[in-house]
Amino acid sequence: MMMDRLPSWNDGAAKRAIVDFVTRTTAEGGPDYVPAPDRVALFDNDGTLWVEQPMYTQLTFVLDDVRRLAPQHPEWASTEPFKSVLENDLVGLAAAGVPGVMKLLAATQCGMTTEEFNKTAGDWVEKARHPRFDRLYTQCVYQPMLELIDYLKANDFEVYIVTGGGVEFVRAWAQRVYGVPPRRVVGSSLKTKFELRDAGPALIRTPEINLVNDGPGKPVGIHEFIGKQPIAAFGNSDGDLEMLQWTAAGTGARLLLLVHHTDSEREYAYDAHSAFGMLSKALDEARSRGWIVVDMKRDWNTIFSSVSP
Amino acid sequence: MMMDRLPSWNDGAAKRAIVDFVTRTTAEGGPDYVPAPDRVALFDNDGTLWVEQPMYTQLTFVLDDVRRLAPQHPEWASTEPFKSVLENDLVGLAAAGVPGVMKLLAATQCGMTTEEFNKTAGDWVEKARHPRFDRLYTQCVYQPMLELIDYLKANDFEVYIVTGGGVEFVRAWAQRVYGVPPRRVVGSSLKTKFELRDAGPALIRTPEINLVNDGPGKPVGIHEFIGKQPIAAFGNSDGDLEMLQWTAAGTGARLLLLVHHTDSEREYAYDAHSAFGMLSKALDEARSRGWIVVDMKRDWNTIFSSVSP
Repeated sequence: MMMDRLPSWNDGAAKRAIVDFVTRTTAEGGPDYVPAPDRVALFDNDGTLWVEQPMYTQLTFVLDDVRRLAPQHPEWASTEPFKSVLENDLVGLAAAGVPGVMKLLAATQCGMTTEEFNKTAGDWVEKARHPRFDRLYTQCVYQPMLELIDYLKANDFEVYIVTGGGVEFVRAWAQRVYGVPPRRVVGSSLKTKFELRDAGPALIRTPEINLVNDGPGKPVGIHEFIGKQPIAAFGNSDGDLEMLQWTAAGTGARLLLLVHHTDSEREYAYDAHSAFGMLSKALDEARSRGWIVVDMKRDWNTIFSSVSP
Repeated sequence: MMMDRLPSWNDGAAKRAIVDFVTRTTAEGGPDYVPAPDRVALFDNDGTLWVEQPMYTQLTFVLDDVRRLAPQHPEWASTEPFKSVLENDLVGLAAAGVPGVMKLLAATQCGMTTEEFNKTAGDWVEKARHPRFDRLYTQCVYQPMLELIDYLKANDFEVYIVTGGGVEFVRAWAQRVYGVPPRRVVGSSLKTKFELRDAGPALIRTPEINLVNDGPGKPVGIHEFIGKQPIAAFGNSDGDLEMLQWTAAGTGARLLLLVHHTDSEREYAYDAHSAFGMLSKALDEARSRGWIVVDMKRDWNTIFSSVSP
């Protein structure tokens, strides 16, 4: 009997499709065989590998940073969007939109070296806890997806994270939590600037956006960082649609999968009407094209990893 | 007796320093040991891995493309900078400067899909010959550097190309010529744009510059693509200085090397006064900091690879 590499996945169409794909693409001499260097698999992060409710974890990090630094900025008490953050007024913050969040980012997480940011992000993620589950965010990662990463790696797939989140934020802990090294994380980024300082050369984070690696930006990031046609992609929201379309293109075996959050008891249930991780167009396309849609409630017997990374 | 992995290198300080560095960083338990995933080595391309005289090879590619497409553009005969190219007036082209070259690029190598460009570049490089050596440009690669790449790879180094040239141009042939896969090529790039076309999803090359991976842009590209501290870097011009400074930073063993083109008979001799691959500030800094300076004439017993890639 073969060992079950995906014990947290209930038997069903999703699990069967995954095992079938891996078996076919690794069967030397078979019609769907793909040589190891071409086995490129992509994972979205927020909502695909870890929790993205009640808001993106990285947004929580930025808001925490505003609170942490507020004592040094008395003017924030009366300046938007800082005021809304300090008063826990999420409606006011939502009204400030993306430009508002960029203002928060520029004030808290720019102007520092990449090394300093890496430390700040690493420190935060080591301590911050999810408000509902009262566990570290890095323990709010999905056990079935960790098993899928390991299963693919054991079959010589190159596993990449392709996230709309900040590449430097995710790189700060992806190796420890997912076993994915920095160079295999593709994400949104700010422009950095090289400076020769007294302490030596440094890269400074500027507030200028370099890449928004979300939606149609994902194929751009994939092409730029990997330069190769992926053959498997895993996502959960409309922000992953173009990544799935891009991966589906070309010839040969493909595995396309969407995680549908259907479990309000053990995690969350949301799709077309969620402010974070909206899933609507991508779900329609998955159904019409026969991509795998994981029903979290039905397909996963375990949600969160019990291992402390 | 140990096999000589660098037979094209004459015995001397440069070769000894390379072998010493690799021996020390791979000696488990030794004071300079570096675990395999952290053995990141960077190679510049133009002038470090292949010839960059009488002009950057990629510039020759662009000029050839202007000539190839000229019959479809009768207006070019009277429009600069196209006119200069078609009349082989390199002085006129030089007067047009970088904005001029960008105009040529926009007219010939933008608006197409990344796939189409990849084919055009691959086709060109399979046929184009160096004007002086009358061999393929891909045969104007330096045999000693190919040996160095292989030597590092055999010692579990991750070898990256970090080029001021276009990332898509170099990726089109780097695997075949250097054994370096696309994801290990960091380079300058144009912005691309995702489009859903009738034939399927495509990335279109726009004329907008994304990254100039040269000079202070090299550490930016290295951080963005690799996200890790390199420990060895190989260059040949002032455009590599910041890459070497960035690699030299931090603690632990480092290998920094500049190729000095000193052999006008077998290749070229140039440094501070060359229009391509100017070497002046970086040479001063290498000398004052004790980085290795390869004297091509003295240190290399073979220049070009005799293998047809």
